[in-house]
Amino acid sequence: MAGSTFGKLFQLTTFGESHGPAIGGVVDGCPAGLRVDESAVQAELDRRRPGSTPLGTTRREADTVEFLSGLLEGVTLGTPIGFIIRNADARPADYGHLQQAYRPGHADLTWEQKFGIRDHRGGGRASARETAVRVAAGALARQLLATGGIQVRAWVSQVGEERLLKPWQELDLEAVYRSDVRCPDEPAAARMEALIGRVRREGDTLGGRISCVVRGVPPGLGEPVFDKLHADLAKALFSINAVKGVQFGSGFDAIAMRGSAHNDAYVAKQGRIGTATNRSGGIQGGISNGEAIEFDVAFKPVSTLLRPQSSVDSQGNAVMLEGKGRHDPCVVPRAVPIVEAMACLVLADHLLRQRTARV
Amino acid sequence: MAGSTFGKLFQLTTFGESHGPAIGGVVDGCPAGLRVDESAVQAELDRRRPGSTPLGTTRREADTVEFLSGLLEGVTLGTPIGFIIRNADARPADYGHLQQAYRPGHADLTWEQKFGIRDHRGGGRASARETAVRVAAGALARQLLATGGIQVRAWVSQVGEERLLKPWQELDLEAVYRSDVRCPDEPAAARMEALIGRVRREGDTLGGRISCVVRGVPPGLGEPVFDKLHADLAKALFSINAVKGVQFGSGFDAIAMRGSAHNDAYVAKQGRIGTATNRSGGIQGGISNGEAIEFDVAFKPVSTLLRPQSSVDSQGNAVMLEGKGRHDPCVVPRAVPIVEAMACLVLADHLLRQRTARV
Amino acid sequence: MAGSTFGKLFQLTTFGESHGPAIGGVVDGCPAGLRVDESAVQAELDRRRPGSTPLGTTRREADTVEFLSGLLEGVTLGTPIGFIIRNADARPADYGHLQQAYRPGHADLTWEQKFGIRDHRGGGRASARETAVRVAAGALARQLLATGGIQVRAWVSQVGEERLLKPWQELDLEAVYRSDVRCPDEPAAARMEALIGRVRREGDTLGGRISCVVRGVPPGLGEPVFDKLHADLAKALFSINAVKGVQFGSGFDAIAMRGSAHNDAYVAKQGRIGTATNRSGGIQGGISNGEAIEFDVAFKPVSTLLRPQSSVDSQGNAVMLEGKGRHDPCVVPRAVPIVEAMACLVLADHLLRQRTARV
Amino acid sequence: MAGSTFGKLFQLTTFGESHGPAIGGVVDGCPAGLRVDESAVQAELDRRRPGSTPLGTTRREADTVEFLSGLLEGVTLGTPIGFIIRNADARPADYGHLQQAYRPGHADLTWEQKFGIRDHRGGGRASARETAVRVAAGALARQLLATGGIQVRAWVSQVGEERLLKPWQELDLEAVYRSDVRCPDEPAAARMEALIGRVRREGDTLGGRISCVVRGVPPGLGEPVFDKLHADLAKALFSINAVKGVQFGSGFDAIAMRGSAHNDAYVAKQGRIGTATNRSGGIQGGISNGEAIEFDVAFKPVSTLLRPQSSVDSQGNAVMLEGKGRHDPCVVPRAVPIVEAMACLVLADHLLRQRTARV
Repeated sequence: MAGSTFGKLFQLTTFGESHGPAIGGVVDGCPAGLRVDESAVQAELDRRRPGSTPLGTTRREADTVEFLSGLLEGVTLGTPIGFIIRNADARPADYGHLQQAYRPGHADLTWEQKFGIRDHRGGGRASARETAVRVAAGALARQLLATGGIQVRAWVSQVGEERLLKPWQELDLEAVYRSDVRCPDEPAAARMEALIGRVRREGDTLGGRISCVVRGVPPGLGEPVFDKLHADLAKALFSINAVKGVQFGSGFDAIAMRGSAHNDAYVAKQGRIGTATNRSGGIQGGISNGEAIEFDVAFKPVSTLLRPQSSVDSQGNAVMLEGKGRHDPCVVPRAVPIVEAMACLVLADHLLRQRTARV
Repeated sequence: MAGSTFGKLFQLTTFGESHGPAIGGVVDGCPAGLRVDESAVQAELDRRRPGSTPLGTTRREADTVEFLSGLLEGVTLGTPIGFIIRNADARPADYGHLQQAYRPGHADLTWEQKFGIRDHRGGGRASARETAVRVAAGALARQLLATGGIQVRAWVSQVGEERLLKPWQELDLEAVYRSDVRCPDEPAAARMEALIGRVRREGDTLGGRISCVVRGVPPGLGEPVFDKLHADLAKALFSINAVKGVQFGSGFDAIAMRGSAHNDAYVAKQGRIGTATNRSGGIQGGISNGEAIEFDVAFKPVSTLLRPQSSVDSQGNAVMLEGKGRHDPCVVPRAVPIVEAMACLVLADHLLRQRTARV
Repeated sequence: MAGSTFGKLFQLTTFGESHGPAIGGVVDGCPAGLRVDESAVQAELDRRRPGSTPLGTTRREADTVEFLSGLLEGVTLGTPIGFIIRNADARPADYGHLQQAYRPGHADLTWEQKFGIRDHRGGGRASARETAVRVAAGALARQLLATGGIQVRAWVSQVGEERLLKPWQELDLEAVYRSDVRCPDEPAAARMEALIGRVRREGDTLGGRISCVVRGVPPGLGEPVFDKLHADLAKALFSINAVKGVQFGSGFDAIAMRGSAHNDAYVAKQGRIGTATNRSGGIQGGISNGEAIEFDVAFKPVSTLLRPQSSVDSQGNAVMLEGKGRHDPCVVPRAVPIVEAMACLVLADHLLRQRTARV
Repeated sequence: MAGSTFGKLFQLTTFGESHGPAIGGVVDGCPAGLRVDESAVQAELDRRRPGSTPLGTTRREADTVEFLSGLLEGVTLGTPIGFIIRNADARPADYGHLQQAYRPGHADLTWEQKFGIRDHRGGGRASARETAVRVAAGALARQLLATGGIQVRAWVSQVGEERLLKPWQELDLEAVYRSDVRCPDEPAAARMEALIGRVRREGDTLGGRISCVVRGVPPGLGEPVFDKLHADLAKALFSINAVKGVQFGSGFDAIAMRGSAHNDAYVAKQGRIGTATNRSGGIQGGISNGEAIEFDVAFKPVSTLLRPQSSVDSQGNAVMLEGKGRHDPCVVPRAVPIVEAMACLVLADHLLRQRTARV
């Protein structure tokens, strides 16, 4: 109810501040009998980890996940899977100067307005560090999805004004994590990386776009009215820090299209009814149709600048701030595994929910 | 769990197929002691009603809401408010030809893939008729919000390629419903209406954009991690039929901005800390900051065309379809009260949730 | 959240005051493809109906259920099943004298303490009339359970000091509803009915006990920690008006037993492992073990007496009250279908929940 | 959904097996600004700890709670409070002989029937060790309740056939934990302890009864229909291992009473309306009335005997079992803090829920 639990059947509860002793989570509802590859969970965490790409913050966290329950010799027991990640490299002293000031674009002020108290050490729970827990849980969800042949792949399709427009069918989605900027198209990746370097030297920051495709989704996932599959995905994606927009299939481009051009025609496909085009993004009426699910996520530029900006303190006095700490000039490369994780969590949940749709 | 309940504290459960005896809803969690203006609820329904604008379907529904519980002499009892709306003008015979065929762009096929059975009469529960219940419940939520000075206003800001770019501060938002196309700017409205007329004559359909602003929101609404205020709003909006994209504040435009240009600077405002600009859209870190909440919703073109299009039947045979029934060439004018209703439901829910944030 | 929704996957939401226009409910999560016998639902309602036994109130309600959604030609669509029951014989004038007074043993005072307002007409939503909705929904759940061979049977095993001690294996549980007092043992039934008649003539009222057995439950239902099968059943039973105690299997008698006498020994039974005795009441560690589930429910005597009793009004002044209206001297005969309904709802919910326990 | 989360606004999620690395929990929804006495939490854990009374198991666990999040300098942040308790004295080897056999009265068999897999080491998650997490979370809830003057006190009122019948008003409830058997009446405590000693020497076990009283509850807590205050309490209590029965106020004794004798008369009490007697147990219509809440919980005898008993293995073969490990002959002394903890959790939840009952 207080917003730290996600999902209905495959359910994740998270906790933890960025500079407290640990962050962690509990996955309840993972079916019994799933063989879990713990090293694959760790590998996903490594992809999100600060320092995992030369483009990001220099904060170094081992981000080692410790599983505390729910597994017996690597197999899920059907009981909650509790895990923690210790905050090894916390440097709360970096944030002492922020105890009174509100950083522009951050949640410092609203957090205090809500609770009357806030953890000023590195953003506390508002820090993106919290998403490491989602990545670990998402990795478990991904292993459940894999038993049903479902594959989730995201990549950076835009950094600032540098955009990759190729459709995913022309990309090697297995190559995403071989690219520092998490863009599987080499020329585009090079342009993005050059831009990030330039903007970093200016002490400024960049926004970006992550695109995602989910293949192998069986038809029928999603609940018709309020819990439409894309509605739940959208909520999951907007819950990621810095996300300002989400669209599925044709998205905002659909506004200016005619119905005759937009409708996906039905065609016979290997023993099932498919569609010739995929403007619906794999979801019709909130329910998966068996085509690939496609969506885009817009991220605003990082709020912490490595140059001075003016702000106010809690008494309303003007103050000057300059990011110290260790910060990314562009968040999207590290956000790729987070987008994937949230998509995995939603799909795992709906995969289980669909088990009760019919007598 | 099956997706017909929305909200956590201010909670709406809906039921009903478009051509069954009635649709209806239950609002549970509305605080006791709220004086309800039932005629205002009906007025909202009238704004959504088929036939409420000359631009829409010619289906005529009185859409009279009947309250069955939860009110004593016009005051809420704290008990669930049950209500129904009879389906007066159901013409299931119009849909007999669709029993076997799957309409492109509709949920006919996915519904059947999910449940193994579907109500083919006018889309059944997949019909937009279901949203009348949301509008009635949203009108109750709006009356609760009004006690706290919160105002929700939406309008059509784009139809096809015709766009209204004026900021809301320059529009008369009280004039929205005086415009057939629900656009409060007369020249833009005229262009949109002309476009709708032209496309209707072609038997084709249009997409559109609805913009929404919420004023008077106190700081502090929204739960930090998964139930961020804009995440819950996004889910609510994507649960409306035909929505393909949602963005808050700077939205997709944020991608190509620099952090130095995007950050909203804090300034003193009448005894509180406000922001000089509002690229955050009134929400930072998932929590309202006291500025106006601003968002955009993209709708795809209506799927039912009044001209022939090819499809398949349940055996996979090619068939030709042509919309009979009574259909809108452009759904956005009628969707304005639905967008407002969903926003009201989310805000009422979070207004109550905030009551438990502090000791 | 406000307590009008029950269940997690097979979910009932109810609404309605006893003397408003109607009461009703929404069952969400009933799987698609269940053939529903609507007349069997009505038959269950008839068993709970005031006037259904000569022992109860003389209020006459047709209690005709009207299904509004979720069914197509008698088969569930997977969508919410909405239904209403009109309040035909409401006589709010009978309760005018109670607008200011608080009836002892009733919820008048606490309701007002909670909400600051109450519907004084016949108890409003605190009236047992609300349970008619549960019976209708329970009848749907029963039909789902029947597809899995699960049978729920309850009976009156005690009225005041008159107790039936025979084990259920010696009773004809199909004969329960042929007895006015809902006791399938004729001599015991006669003693109970004589006692009710005597106490009624004294203007007094009686408590009672309902026993229930559920046969055909597959092993494995129930969630281990908080949502143990008997914990959910207990909550369901305590949510029925006038219930003061619930016990499973050996119940309160277990306190004075030794472990060596209490443990149920495992034995081989038709290809499965069963138990020789059933002191566990068919549930071990919160999970069904395949034996019959057995429990007892204690009801306090009816609070409304047909003779004067003293009370206070809202100003704290002493007043004398005497039940007018139409009231049962003993509630348990009419509560039998309610106990069955609540058990059916819980079991249907856990039957669906179990579908996601394993990969 | 999988049963490891409890509560709606003050919400506890738990995890952990008895012989895994750790058990733990997450409390989400605790309001911000509560000063937490961590040593008081530890003190409650110490009262439940194996070895805390000379009457119990000889397993020694430090049961040291480690808080990982949600607190800043001892004050709640409004964020989830995550904590773990390491399993220090796990001796899984004690349970190797149980890998194939099902212990009578335990959940071994049902757990395996549910999940197809079980952790045989000391009961895994079915072990009462899991309740340590509830005690820690309950201690937090208790501190929230204390800010509103609410006090929860439980004691052992029966062990086997030895019963303490004195009403709580005649007991020194602050002395409960000074008694090894958790009975605040010295003569009764002496008889109970003697009985436990005798039965332990026989290798047998005993059941018992815990009584509980909650004072200082404001009127108005509890939701009218399904989430009645005592219904939620009952669910909480039945979720504790070995509980077979729960009753409120007059409980099962109400069955044989007349309404004229059972009704609690209203009387003026220090500026509020109270009741002269308290057969309702402080709850009317599911809502607290301001009187003390009173209930009784029946526990079955411990299932593990320190003498041989017959059972079967997973192939259905007869085997002889004899408790090794370290086991209590009577669970109720150690269950007192667990009963209190569950009551605290329910009351804290409803205290918060009541904040949204009125406009």
